[in-house]
Amino acid sequence: MSSFDGYIVSPTLGDRRLTERVSGTDQDGSNVETSVTVERPLALFLNSREIVTLMTIGDYPECLAVGYLLNQNMLGNDDVLTAVEYDEEADAVVVRTQRETDFEEKLAKQTRTSGCALGTVFGDIMETFEDTVLDPGARIRTSWLYALTKRINTTPSLYLEAGAIHGCVLCETDRPLIYMEDVGRHNAVDKIAGYMYLNDISPAGKVFYTTGRLTSEMVIKTVQMNIPVLISRSGFTAWGVDLARQANLTLIGRARGNRFVALAGEHRIVYDADPNAASDEPAGAGRKAATADS
Amino acid sequence: MSSFDGYIVSPTLGDRRLTERVSGTDQDGSNVETSVTVERPLALFLNSREIVTLMTIGDYPECLAVGYLLNQNMLGNDDVLTAVEYDEEADAVVVRTQRETDFEEKLAKQTRTSGCALGTVFGDIMETFEDTVLDPGARIRTSWLYALTKRINTTPSLYLEAGAIHGCVLCETDRPLIYMEDVGRHNAVDKIAGYMYLNDISPAGKVFYTTGRLTSEMVIKTVQMNIPVLISRSGFTAWGVDLARQANLTLIGRARGNRFVALAGEHRIVYDADPNAASDEPAGAGRKAATADS
Repeated sequence: MSSFDGYIVSPTLGDRRLTERVSGTDQDGSNVETSVTVERPLALFLNSREIVTLMTIGDYPECLAVGYLLNQNMLGNDDVLTAVEYDEEADAVVVRTQRETDFEEKLAKQTRTSGCALGTVFGDIMETFEDTVLDPGARIRTSWLYALTKRINTTPSLYLEAGAIHGCVLCETDRPLIYMEDVGRHNAVDKIAGYMYLNDISPAGKVFYTTGRLTSEMVIKTVQMNIPVLISRSGFTAWGVDLARQANLTLIGRARGNRFVALAGEHRIVYDADPNAASDEPAGAGRKAATADS
Repeated sequence: MSSFDGYIVSPTLGDRRLTERVSGTDQDGSNVETSVTVERPLALFLNSREIVTLMTIGDYPECLAVGYLLNQNMLGNDDVLTAVEYDEEADAVVVRTQRETDFEEKLAKQTRTSGCALGTVFGDIMETFEDTVLDPGARIRTSWLYALTKRINTTPSLYLEAGAIHGCVLCETDRPLIYMEDVGRHNAVDKIAGYMYLNDISPAGKVFYTTGRLTSEMVIKTVQMNIPVLISRSGFTAWGVDLARQANLTLIGRARGNRFVALAGEHRIVYDADPNAASDEPAGAGRKAATADS
Protein backbone atom coordinates (compact mmCIF):
# COMPACT_ATOMS: atom_id res chain seq x y z
CA MET A 1 0.00 0.00 0.00
CA SER A 2 1.70 3.24 -1.08
CA SER A 3 1.01 6.34 0.92
CA PHE A 4 0.72 9.99 0.06
CA ASP A 5 3.26 12.43 1.47
CA GLY A 6 3.91 11.54 5.12
CA TYR A 7 0.77 9.52 5.75
CA ILE A 8 0.93 6.06 7.35
CA VAL A 9 -2.30 5.29 5.52
CA SER A 10 -3.68 7.56 2.82
CA PRO A 11 -6.90 7.11 0.83
CA THR A 12 -6.98 3.97 -1.29
CA LEU A 13 -6.67 5.33 -4.81
CA GLY A 14 -6.29 3.33 -7.97
CA ASP A 15 -8.10 0.30 -6.55
CA ARG A 16 -10.62 -0.58 -9.23
CA ARG A 17 -12.88 -2.31 -6.71
CA LEU A 18 -13.64 0.93 -4.87
CA THR A 19 -15.04 3.09 -7.64
CA GLU A 20 -16.92 2.24 -10.79
CA ARG A 21 -17.03 4.09 -14.10
CA VAL A 22 -20.60 4.59 -15.27
CA SER A 23 -22.05 6.47 -18.19
CA GLY A 24 -24.96 8.86 -18.01
CA THR A 25 -26.28 12.15 -19.29
CA ASP A 26 -25.49 15.71 -18.21
CA GLN A 27 -27.50 18.95 -18.17
CA ASP A 28 -26.94 19.40 -21.92
CA GLY A 29 -28.25 15.94 -22.69
CA SER A 30 -24.71 14.88 -23.60
CA ASN A 31 -23.30 11.51 -22.71
CA VAL A 32 -20.84 11.64 -19.82
CA GLU A 33 -18.64 9.12 -18.08
CA THR A 34 -18.20 9.55 -14.35
CA SER A 35 -16.87 7.69 -11.30
CA VAL A 36 -19.18 6.54 -8.53
CA THR A 37 -18.31 5.05 -5.17
CA VAL A 38 -18.88 1.36 -4.63
CA GLU A 39 -20.82 0.08 -1.61
CA ARG A 40 -20.83 -3.62 -0.87
CA PRO A 41 -22.01 -5.77 2.01
CA LEU A 42 -19.50 -7.16 4.49
CA ALA A 43 -20.79 -9.78 6.93
CA LEU A 44 -19.09 -9.68 10.30
CA PHE A 45 -18.75 -12.75 12.51
CA LEU A 46 -17.43 -12.83 16.06
CA ASN A 47 -16.30 -16.43 16.59
CA SER A 48 -19.30 -18.46 15.47
CA ARG A 49 -21.87 -15.70 15.79
CA GLU A 50 -22.98 -13.44 12.92
CA ILE A 51 -23.03 -9.91 14.30
CA VAL A 52 -23.99 -7.54 11.50
CA THR A 53 -23.73 -6.87 7.78
CA LEU A 54 -22.03 -3.55 7.10
CA MET A 55 -22.31 -1.60 3.84
CA THR A 56 -18.78 -0.49 3.01
CA ILE A 57 -16.55 0.45 0.10
CA GLY A 58 -14.57 -2.63 1.02
CA ASP A 59 -10.99 -1.58 1.72
CA TYR A 60 -9.41 -2.62 5.04
CA PRO A 61 -12.10 -5.18 5.90
CA GLU A 62 -10.07 -6.56 8.82
CA CYS A 63 -9.65 -3.08 10.32
CA LEU A 64 -13.34 -2.37 9.85
CA ALA A 65 -14.35 -5.62 11.55
CA VAL A 66 -12.08 -5.17 14.56
CA GLY A 67 -12.83 -1.46 14.87
CA TYR A 68 -16.57 -2.07 14.73
CA LEU A 69 -16.37 -4.65 17.52
CA LEU A 70 -14.16 -2.37 19.63
CA ASN A 71 -16.34 0.69 19.18
CA GLN A 72 -19.48 -1.32 19.92
CA ASN A 73 -17.81 -2.62 23.09
CA MET A 74 -18.17 -6.16 21.80
CA LEU A 75 -14.43 -6.68 22.23
CA GLY A 76 -13.05 -5.78 25.65
CA ASN A 77 -9.58 -5.22 27.01
CA ASP A 78 -9.37 -8.75 28.31
CA ASP A 79 -10.29 -10.39 25.00
CA VAL A 80 -7.36 -11.84 23.08
CA LEU A 81 -7.64 -11.85 19.29
CA THR A 82 -6.41 -15.10 17.77
CA ALA A 83 -7.37 -14.47 14.15
CA VAL A 84 -9.01 -11.99 11.80
CA GLU A 85 -9.96 -13.82 8.62
CA TYR A 86 -11.25 -12.02 5.55
CA ASP A 87 -13.00 -14.14 2.93
CA GLU A 88 -13.19 -11.98 -0.18
CA GLU A 89 -15.49 -14.31 -2.09
CA ALA A 90 -17.99 -14.56 0.73
CA ASP A 91 -17.72 -10.83 1.59
CA ALA A 92 -17.20 -11.83 5.21
CA VAL A 93 -14.78 -11.27 8.06
CA VAL A 94 -14.47 -13.64 10.99
CA VAL A 95 -12.88 -12.29 14.16
CA ARG A 96 -11.73 -15.02 16.54
CA THR A 97 -10.91 -14.62 20.21
CA GLN A 98 -9.15 -16.98 22.60
CA ARG A 99 -12.36 -17.68 24.48
CA GLU A 100 -15.97 -16.72 23.86
CA THR A 101 -16.38 -13.02 24.61
CA ASP A 102 -18.51 -11.49 27.28
CA PHE A 103 -20.63 -9.95 24.55
CA GLU A 104 -21.63 -13.24 22.99
CA GLU A 105 -22.68 -14.49 26.39
CA LYS A 106 -24.84 -11.42 26.93
CA LEU A 107 -26.28 -11.68 23.45
CA ALA A 108 -27.18 -15.34 23.96
CA LYS A 109 -28.94 -14.51 27.23
CA GLN A 110 -30.85 -11.68 25.63
CA THR A 111 -31.96 -13.74 22.67
CA ARG A 112 -33.50 -16.22 25.03
CA THR A 113 -35.45 -13.46 26.71
CA SER A 114 -36.50 -10.47 24.65
CA GLY A 115 -34.92 -10.43 21.22
CA CYS A 116 -32.02 -8.16 20.29
CA ALA A 117 -29.42 -7.18 22.85
CA LEU A 118 -29.09 -3.64 21.63
CA GLY A 119 -30.35 -2.14 24.85
CA THR A 120 -27.78 -4.00 26.93
CA VAL A 121 -25.00 -3.23 24.51
CA PHE A 122 -25.80 0.46 24.50
CA GLY A 123 -25.83 0.45 28.30
CA ASP A 124 -22.33 -1.05 28.27
CA ILE A 125 -21.07 1.63 25.92
CA MET A 126 -22.35 4.40 28.14
CA GLU A 127 -20.67 2.79 31.16
CA THR A 128 -17.29 2.83 29.40
CA PHE A 129 -18.01 6.35 28.23
CA GLU A 130 -18.59 7.58 31.76
CA ASP A 131 -15.45 5.88 33.04
CA THR A 132 -13.11 7.29 30.40
CA VAL A 133 -10.82 10.12 31.46
CA LEU A 134 -9.42 11.96 28.45
CA ASP A 135 -5.93 13.44 28.85
CA PRO A 136 -6.50 16.87 30.40
CA GLY A 137 -2.96 17.92 29.42
CA ALA A 138 -3.42 17.34 25.68
CA ARG A 139 -3.32 20.48 23.53
CA ILE A 140 -4.50 21.49 20.09
CA ARG A 141 -2.76 24.52 18.61
CA THR A 142 -4.71 26.59 16.11
CA SER A 143 -1.63 26.54 13.86
CA TRP A 144 -1.90 22.71 13.81
CA LEU A 145 -5.62 22.89 13.16
CA TYR A 146 -5.17 25.19 10.14
CA ALA A 147 -2.31 23.10 8.77
CA LEU A 148 -4.27 19.86 9.25
CA THR A 149 -7.44 21.01 7.52
CA LYS A 150 -5.42 22.40 4.63
CA ARG A 151 -3.43 19.18 4.18
CA ILE A 152 -6.47 16.94 4.53
CA ASN A 153 -8.52 18.95 2.02
CA THR A 154 -5.81 18.78 -0.61
CA THR A 155 -4.91 15.11 -0.14
CA PRO A 156 -5.91 13.03 -3.19
CA SER A 157 -8.94 11.03 -2.09
CA LEU A 158 -11.88 8.99 -3.29
CA TYR A 159 -13.98 11.98 -2.33
CA LEU A 160 -12.18 14.15 -4.84
CA GLU A 161 -12.42 11.32 -7.40
CA ALA A 162 -16.01 10.14 -6.99
CA GLY A 163 -17.71 12.04 -4.14
CA ALA A 164 -20.44 10.57 -1.93
CA ILE A 165 -17.99 9.34 0.67
CA HIS A 166 -16.96 10.22 4.21
CA GLY A 167 -13.45 10.71 5.48
CA CYS A 168 -11.84 10.39 8.91
CA VAL A 169 -8.25 11.20 9.75
CA LEU A 170 -6.11 10.36 12.76
CA CYS A 171 -3.66 13.21 13.30
CA GLU A 172 -0.76 14.15 15.54
CA THR A 173 0.25 17.80 15.99
CA ASP A 174 0.04 19.27 12.47
CA ARG A 175 0.37 15.93 10.65
CA PRO A 176 -2.44 13.75 9.31
CA LEU A 177 -1.36 10.11 9.81
CA ILE A 178 -4.20 7.75 8.89
CA TYR A 179 -6.85 8.83 6.42
CA MET A 180 -9.68 6.35 5.85
CA GLU A 181 -12.75 6.84 3.69
CA ASP A 182 -16.03 4.96 3.48
CA VAL A 183 -19.60 5.30 2.27
CA GLY A 184 -20.60 4.76 5.88
CA ARG A 185 -19.34 7.54 8.11
CA HIS A 186 -19.00 5.21 11.05
CA ASN A 187 -17.09 2.69 9.00
CA ALA A 188 -14.36 5.26 8.40
CA VAL A 189 -14.01 5.79 12.17
CA ASP A 190 -14.13 2.08 12.86
CA LYS A 191 -11.45 1.32 10.25
CA ILE A 192 -9.13 3.77 12.01
CA ALA A 193 -9.93 2.23 15.41
CA GLY A 194 -9.22 -1.23 14.01
CA TYR A 195 -6.00 -0.10 12.36
CA MET A 196 -4.80 1.47 15.62
CA TYR A 197 -5.59 -1.72 17.55
CA LEU A 198 -4.01 -4.10 15.03
CA ASN A 199 -0.90 -1.92 14.66
CA ASP A 200 -0.61 -0.93 18.29
CA ILE A 201 -0.92 2.81 17.72
CA SER A 202 -1.55 4.72 20.93
CA PRO A 203 -4.24 7.41 21.14
CA ALA A 204 -1.91 9.56 23.25
CA GLY A 205 -1.26 12.94 21.67
CA LYS A 206 -3.66 12.22 18.81
CA VAL A 207 -6.39 14.37 17.31
CA PHE A 208 -9.35 13.00 15.37
CA TYR A 209 -10.73 14.71 12.27
CA THR A 210 -13.99 13.84 10.52
CA THR A 211 -15.76 15.29 7.51
CA GLY A 212 -19.06 14.26 9.12
CA ARG A 213 -21.32 15.87 11.66
CA LEU A 214 -20.50 15.96 15.35
CA THR A 215 -23.33 13.76 16.57
CA SER A 216 -23.66 11.75 19.78
CA GLU A 217 -22.38 8.64 18.02
CA MET A 218 -19.27 10.37 16.70
CA VAL A 219 -18.50 11.81 20.16
CA ILE A 220 -19.03 8.43 21.84
CA LYS A 221 -16.70 6.69 19.38
CA THR A 222 -13.95 9.30 19.83
CA VAL A 223 -14.18 8.91 23.61
CA GLN A 224 -14.18 5.08 23.22
CA MET A 225 -10.93 5.50 21.28
CA ASN A 226 -9.54 7.65 24.11
CA ILE A 227 -8.72 10.57 21.80
CA PRO A 228 -9.15 13.96 23.53
CA VAL A 229 -9.76 16.23 20.51
CA LEU A 230 -12.40 15.88 17.78
CA ILE A 231 -12.52 18.26 14.80
CA SER A 232 -15.01 18.53 11.96
CA ARG A 233 -15.69 20.88 9.11
CA SER A 234 -19.37 20.13 9.68
CA GLY A 235 -21.83 21.13 12.36
CA PHE A 236 -22.99 19.90 15.75
CA THR A 237 -25.98 18.23 17.28
CA ALA A 238 -27.03 19.29 20.76
CA TRP A 239 -26.56 15.79 22.18
CA GLY A 240 -23.07 15.59 20.66
CA VAL A 241 -22.20 18.82 22.47
CA ASP A 242 -23.70 17.58 25.76
CA LEU A 243 -21.76 14.32 25.64
CA ALA A 244 -18.51 16.06 24.70
CA ARG A 245 -18.90 18.37 27.71
CA GLN A 246 -19.61 15.40 29.99
CA ALA A 247 -16.53 13.57 28.73
CA ASN A 248 -14.34 16.67 28.70
CA LEU A 249 -13.66 16.11 24.99
CA THR A 250 -12.48 19.12 22.97
CA LEU A 251 -15.11 19.51 20.28
CA ILE A 252 -14.31 21.78 17.34
CA GLY A 253 -16.78 22.13 14.49
CA ARG A 254 -17.42 24.19 11.37
CA ALA A 255 -13.64 24.23 10.84
CA ARG A 256 -13.34 25.77 7.39
CA GLY A 257 -10.46 27.90 6.22
CA ASN A 258 -9.29 29.68 9.34
CA ARG A 259 -12.67 29.67 11.05
CA PHE A 260 -14.05 27.30 13.64
CA VAL A 261 -16.34 27.08 16.67
CA ALA A 262 -15.41 25.09 19.76
CA LEU A 263 -18.31 24.03 21.97
CA ALA A 264 -16.59 21.80 24.54
CA GLY A 265 -13.17 21.34 26.12
CA GLU A 266 -11.91 24.74 24.97
CA HIS A 267 -9.15 24.71 27.61
CA ARG A 268 -7.05 22.46 25.32
CA ILE A 269 -6.96 25.05 22.53
CA VAL A 270 -3.80 27.15 22.20
CA TYR A 271 -4.36 30.20 20.00
CA ASP A 272 -0.95 30.47 18.35
CA ALA A 273 -1.99 31.39 14.78
CA ASP A 274 -3.52 34.51 13.29
CA PRO A 275 -6.99 33.59 12.04
CA ASN A 276 -6.99 36.74 9.93
CA ALA A 277 -4.02 35.64 7.86
CA ALA A 278 -4.86 34.56 4.31
CA SER A 279 -7.28 31.65 4.45
CA ASP A 280 -5.99 28.21 3.59
CA GLU A 281 -9.23 27.40 1.83
CA PRO A 282 -9.83 29.46 -1.29
CA ALA A 283 -13.34 29.02 -2.70
CA GLY A 284 -13.58 26.00 -4.96
CA ALA A 285 -10.27 24.46 -3.93
CA GLY A 286 -10.21 20.89 -2.68
CA ARG A 287 -13.04 19.79 -0.44
CA LYS A 288 -16.14 21.93 -0.69
CA ALA A 289 -17.81 23.90 2.07
CA ALA A 290 -19.85 21.89 4.53
CA THR A 291 -23.46 21.18 3.80
CA ALA A 292 -26.66 19.91 5.28
CA ASP A 293 -25.44 16.41 4.83
CA SER A 294 -22.38 16.93 6.82
CA MET B 1 -48.52 24.82 11.43
CA SER B 2 -47.77 27.82 9.19
CA SER B 3 -46.09 27.17 5.89
CA PHE B 4 -43.64 29.09 3.77
CA ASP B 5 -44.75 30.36 0.38
CA GLY B 6 -46.77 27.65 -1.35
CA TYR B 7 -45.57 24.69 0.70
CA ILE B 8 -48.01 22.23 2.26
CA VAL B 9 -45.33 21.56 4.86
CA SER B 10 -42.24 23.73 5.19
CA PRO B 11 -39.37 23.30 7.66
CA THR B 12 -40.37 23.62 11.30
CA LEU B 13 -38.87 26.95 12.30
CA GLY B 14 -39.33 28.75 15.58
CA ASP B 15 -39.93 25.53 17.53
CA ARG B 16 -37.62 25.83 20.50
CA ARG B 17 -37.50 22.04 20.94
CA LEU B 18 -35.67 21.54 17.64
CA THR B 19 -32.60 23.70 18.10
CA GLU B 20 -30.67 24.72 21.15
CA ARG B 21 -28.62 27.84 21.80
CA VAL B 22 -25.18 27.00 23.15
CA SER B 23 -22.17 29.14 23.91
CA GLY B 24 -18.64 28.38 22.84
CA THR B 25 -15.46 29.92 21.53
CA ASP B 26 -14.48 30.94 18.01
CA GLN B 27 -11.16 31.08 16.15
CA ASP B 28 -10.24 34.36 17.89
CA GLY B 29 -10.87 32.87 21.32
CA SER B 30 -13.98 35.06 21.63
CA ASN B 31 -17.19 33.84 23.21
CA VAL B 32 -19.89 33.06 20.67
CA GLU B 33 -23.49 31.93 20.89
CA THR B 34 -24.70 29.56 18.20
CA SER B 35 -27.63 27.27 17.36
CA VAL B 36 -27.23 23.50 17.24
CA THR B 37 -29.69 20.89 16.09
CA VAL B 38 -31.37 18.72 18.70
CA GLU B 39 -31.40 14.92 18.38
CA ARG B 40 -33.59 12.91 20.72
CA PRO B 41 -34.66 9.27 20.94
CA LEU B 42 -38.10 8.22 19.75
CA ALA B 43 -39.18 4.69 20.62
CA LEU B 44 -41.46 3.12 18.06
CA PHE B 45 -44.01 0.46 18.93
CA LEU B 46 -46.14 -1.52 16.49
CA ASN B 47 -49.11 -2.71 18.53
CA SER B 48 -47.50 -4.29 21.58
CA ARG B 49 -44.08 -4.84 20.04
CA GLU B 50 -41.15 -2.42 20.42
CA ILE B 51 -39.61 -2.07 16.96
CA VAL B 52 -36.77 0.42 17.15
CA THR B 53 -35.53 3.60 18.79
CA LEU B 54 -34.90 6.32 16.23
CA MET B 55 -32.71 9.38 16.82
CA THR B 56 -34.65 12.33 15.46
CA ILE B 57 -35.08 16.08 15.84
CA GLY B 58 -38.55 15.25 17.04
CA ASP B 59 -41.04 17.03 14.80
CA TYR B 60 -43.82 15.01 13.13
CA PRO B 61 -43.30 11.91 15.31
CA GLU B 62 -46.50 10.28 14.00
CA CYS B 63 -45.39 10.74 10.39
CA LEU B 64 -41.95 9.39 11.20
CA ALA B 65 -43.39 6.32 12.90
CA VAL B 66 -45.82 5.46 10.12
CA GLY B 67 -43.32 6.28 7.36
CA TYR B 68 -40.64 4.13 8.97
CA LEU B 69 -42.99 1.16 9.18
CA LEU B 70 -44.13 1.66 5.58
CA ASN B 71 -40.62 2.02 4.18
CA GLN B 72 -39.44 -1.00 6.16
CA ASN B 73 -42.37 -2.98 4.75
CA MET B 74 -43.61 -3.59 8.28
CA LEU B 75 -46.98 -2.13 7.31
CA GLY B 76 -48.58 -3.57 4.21
CA ASN B 77 -51.43 -2.50 1.96
CA ASP B 78 -53.89 -4.75 3.77
CA ASP B 79 -53.07 -3.41 7.23
CA VAL B 80 -55.63 -0.97 8.62
CA LEU B 81 -54.31 1.72 10.99
CA THR B 82 -56.58 2.24 13.95
CA ALA B 83 -54.42 4.67 15.94
CA VAL B 84 -51.12 6.51 15.98
CA GLU B 85 -50.42 7.67 19.51
CA TYR B 86 -47.54 9.96 20.39
CA ASP B 87 -46.54 10.15 24.03
CA GLU B 88 -44.33 13.23 24.34
CA GLU B 89 -43.23 12.50 27.89
CA ALA B 90 -42.19 8.95 27.11
CA ASP B 91 -40.66 9.91 23.74
CA ALA B 92 -42.63 7.09 22.15
CA VAL B 93 -45.08 6.48 19.35
CA VAL B 94 -47.44 3.54 19.27
CA VAL B 95 -48.90 2.56 15.90
CA ARG B 96 -51.95 0.32 16.18
CA THR B 97 -53.46 -1.81 13.46
CA GLN B 98 -56.82 -3.56 13.29
CA ARG B 99 -55.20 -6.96 13.61
CA GLU B 100 -51.66 -8.08 14.31
CA THR B 101 -49.54 -7.41 11.21
CA ASP B 102 -47.78 -9.94 9.10
CA PHE B 103 -44.50 -8.45 10.18
CA GLU B 104 -45.04 -9.11 13.87
CA GLU B 105 -45.84 -12.69 13.09
CA LYS B 106 -42.63 -13.06 11.06
CA LEU B 107 -40.63 -11.34 13.75
CA ALA B 108 -42.03 -13.63 16.45
CA LYS B 109 -41.16 -16.67 14.38
CA GLN B 110 -37.65 -15.41 13.75
CA THR B 111 -37.05 -14.62 17.38
CA ARG B 112 -37.85 -18.17 18.30
CA THR B 113 -35.32 -19.42 15.78
CA SER B 114 -32.27 -17.27 15.09
CA GLY B 115 -32.49 -13.83 16.65
CA CYS B 116 -33.27 -10.68 14.69
CA ALA B 117 -35.57 -10.80 11.68
CA LEU B 118 -33.57 -8.30 9.69
CA GLY B 119 -32.69 -10.80 6.99
CA THR B 120 -36.31 -11.69 6.41
CA VAL B 121 -37.40 -8.09 6.44
CA PHE B 122 -34.77 -7.09 3.91
CA GLY B 123 -35.87 -9.96 1.68
CA ASP B 124 -39.43 -8.66 1.81
CA ILE B 125 -38.32 -5.18 0.85
CA MET B 126 -36.46 -6.46 -2.18
CA GLU B 127 -39.52 -8.43 -3.27
CA THR B 128 -41.68 -5.30 -3.24
CA PHE B 129 -38.87 -3.43 -4.97
CA GLU B 130 -38.76 -5.92 -7.81
CA ASP B 131 -42.54 -5.85 -8.20
CA THR B 132 -42.86 -2.07 -8.37
CA VAL B 133 -43.46 -0.52 -11.79
CA LEU B 134 -42.72 3.20 -11.77
CA ASP B 135 -44.80 5.36 -14.11
CA PRO B 136 -42.94 5.24 -17.45
CA GLY B 137 -44.90 8.27 -18.68
CA ALA B 138 -43.78 10.60 -15.88
CA ARG B 139 -41.55 13.48 -16.96
CA ILE B 140 -39.07 15.83 -15.31
CA ARG B 141 -38.39 19.04 -17.20
CA THR B 142 -35.01 20.67 -16.66
CA SER B 143 -36.83 23.99 -16.18
CA TRP B 144 -38.67 22.40 -13.22
CA LEU B 145 -35.45 20.95 -11.89
CA TYR B 146 -33.69 24.33 -11.92
CA ALA B 147 -36.70 26.09 -10.37
CA LEU B 148 -37.01 23.40 -7.68
CA THR B 149 -33.39 23.45 -6.58
CA LYS B 150 -33.41 27.24 -6.46
CA ARG B 151 -36.58 27.38 -4.37
CA ILE B 152 -35.48 24.61 -2.02
CA ASN B 153 -32.06 26.17 -1.44
CA THR B 154 -33.53 29.52 -0.52
CA THR B 155 -36.35 28.23 1.69
CA PRO B 156 -35.81 29.16 5.35
CA SER B 157 -34.79 25.92 7.05
CA LEU B 158 -33.22 24.45 10.15
CA TYR B 159 -30.21 23.77 7.95
CA LEU B 160 -29.74 27.46 7.32
CA GLU B 161 -30.34 28.14 11.03
CA ALA B 162 -28.24 25.46 12.70
CA GLY B 163 -26.69 23.15 10.07
CA ALA B 164 -25.97 19.47 10.63
CA ILE B 165 -29.33 18.35 9.27
CA HIS B 166 -30.69 16.60 6.19
CA GLY B 167 -33.58 17.73 4.07
CA CYS B 168 -36.02 15.90 1.79
CA VAL B 169 -38.68 17.52 -0.35
CA LEU B 170 -41.68 16.08 -2.14
CA CYS B 171 -42.24 18.10 -5.30
CA GLU B 172 -44.70 18.35 -8.20
CA THR B 173 -43.66 19.99 -11.49
CA ASP B 174 -41.68 23.08 -10.40
CA ARG B 175 -43.22 23.32 -6.92
CA PRO B 176 -41.78 21.95 -3.67
CA LEU B 177 -44.73 20.74 -1.57
CA ILE B 178 -43.49 18.99 1.57
CA TYR B 179 -40.08 19.83 3.02
CA MET B 180 -39.02 17.76 6.02
CA GLU B 181 -35.69 17.91 7.84
CA ASP B 182 -34.05 15.58 10.31
CA VAL B 183 -30.68 14.71 11.82
CA GLY B 184 -31.21 11.26 10.33
CA ARG B 185 -31.37 11.37 6.55
CA HIS B 186 -33.74 8.44 6.43
CA ASN B 187 -36.00 10.00 9.01
CA ALA B 188 -36.62 12.92 6.67
CA VAL B 189 -37.71 10.51 3.91
CA ASP B 190 -39.80 8.47 6.30
CA LYS B 191 -41.58 11.55 7.66
CA ILE B 192 -42.62 12.45 4.12
CA ALA B 193 -43.79 8.88 3.44
CA GLY B 194 -45.81 8.94 6.66
CA TYR B 195 -47.27 12.35 5.88
CA MET B 196 -48.32 11.18 2.41
CA TYR B 197 -49.97 8.08 3.87
CA LEU B 198 -51.76 9.86 6.70
CA ASN B 199 -52.97 12.67 4.40
CA ASP B 200 -53.70 10.49 1.40
CA ILE B 201 -51.29 12.22 -0.97
CA SER B 202 -50.69 10.23 -4.14
CA PRO B 203 -47.17 9.67 -5.49
CA ALA B 204 -48.47 10.18 -9.05
CA GLY B 205 -46.69 13.03 -10.81
CA LYS B 206 -44.36 13.59 -7.88
CA VAL B 207 -40.61 14.10 -7.79
CA PHE B 208 -38.44 13.42 -4.75
CA TYR B 209 -35.54 15.67 -3.76
CA THR B 210 -32.93 14.89 -1.12
CA THR B 211 -29.88 16.75 0.12
CA GLY B 212 -28.28 13.38 0.87
CA ARG B 213 -26.36 10.90 -1.20
CA LEU B 214 -28.02 8.61 -3.72
CA THR B 215 -27.30 5.32 -1.96
CA SER B 216 -29.03 1.96 -2.29
CA GLU B 217 -31.23 2.75 0.71
CA MET B 218 -32.37 6.07 -0.70
CA VAL B 219 -33.21 4.47 -4.05
CA ILE B 220 -35.09 1.60 -2.39
CA LYS B 221 -37.17 4.01 -0.30
CA THR B 222 -38.07 6.17 -3.30
CA VAL B 223 -39.19 3.07 -5.20
CA GLN B 224 -41.15 1.87 -2.12
CA MET B 225 -42.92 5.22 -2.22
CA ASN B 226 -43.69 4.71 -5.91
CA ILE B 227 -42.10 7.99 -6.95
CA PRO B 228 -40.44 7.81 -10.39
CA VAL B 229 -37.86 10.62 -10.11
CA LEU B 230 -35.16 11.11 -7.45
CA ILE B 231 -32.94 14.21 -7.41
CA SER B 232 -30.01 15.09 -5.18
CA ARG B 233 -27.40 17.78 -5.04
CA SER B 234 -25.04 15.08 -3.75
CA GLY B 235 -23.31 12.16 -5.41
CA PHE B 236 -24.03 8.51 -6.16
CA THR B 237 -23.00 5.12 -4.96
CA ALA B 238 -22.61 2.37 -7.54
CA TRP B 239 -25.27 0.20 -5.92
CA GLY B 240 -27.70 3.12 -5.85
CA VAL B 241 -27.17 3.49 -9.60
CA ASP B 242 -27.61 -0.25 -10.22
CA LEU B 243 -30.86 -0.40 -8.28
CA ALA B 244 -32.24 2.73 -9.95
CA ARG B 245 -31.53 1.17 -13.35
CA GLN B 246 -33.23 -2.07 -12.29
CA ALA B 247 -36.30 -0.20 -11.07
CA ASN B 248 -36.34 2.22 -14.00
CA LEU B 249 -36.11 5.13 -11.57
CA THR B 250 -34.87 8.45 -12.96
CA LEU B 251 -31.78 9.20 -10.86
CA ILE B 252 -30.35 12.72 -11.04
CA GLY B 253 -27.38 13.67 -8.87
CA ARG B 254 -24.87 16.46 -8.36
CA ALA B 255 -27.70 18.88 -9.16
CA ARG B 256 -26.12 22.23 -8.34
CA GLY B 257 -26.93 25.48 -10.05
CA ASN B 258 -27.79 24.48 -13.60
CA ARG B 259 -25.61 21.39 -13.63
CA PHE B 260 -26.53 17.78 -13.01
CA VAL B 261 -25.70 14.21 -13.99
CA ALA B 262 -28.41 11.61 -14.65
CA LEU B 263 -27.31 7.99 -14.31
CA ALA B 264 -30.60 6.11 -14.71
CA GLY B 265 -34.02 6.59 -16.31
CA GLU B 266 -32.86 9.45 -18.51
CA HIS B 267 -35.83 8.96 -20.87
CA ARG B 268 -38.03 10.91 -18.43
CA ILE B 269 -35.92 14.06 -18.72
CA VAL B 270 -37.18 16.83 -21.01
CA TYR B 271 -34.46 19.37 -21.80
CA ASP B 272 -36.54 22.54 -22.00
CA ALA B 273 -34.19 25.00 -20.25
CA ASP B 274 -30.88 26.52 -21.25
CA PRO B 275 -28.28 25.23 -18.79
CA ASN B 276 -25.96 28.01 -19.88
CA ALA B 277 -28.29 30.74 -18.67
CA ALA B 278 -27.15 32.53 -15.51
CA SER B 279 -26.87 29.99 -12.72
CA ASP B 280 -29.50 30.03 -10.01
CA GLU B 281 -26.87 29.26 -7.41
CA PRO B 282 -24.38 32.07 -6.88
CA ALA B 283 -21.45 31.08 -4.68
CA GLY B 284 -22.25 31.47 -1.01
CA ALA B 285 -26.00 31.84 -1.45
CA GLY B 286 -28.33 29.53 0.43
CA ARG B 287 -27.30 25.93 0.74
CA LYS B 288 -23.63 25.27 0.21
CA ALA B 289 -22.00 23.11 -2.40
CA ALA B 290 -22.15 19.40 -1.83
CA THR B 291 -19.45 17.74 0.16
CA ALA B 292 -17.99 14.43 1.14
CA ASP B 293 -20.74 14.00 3.62
CA SER B 294 -23.43 14.41 1.11
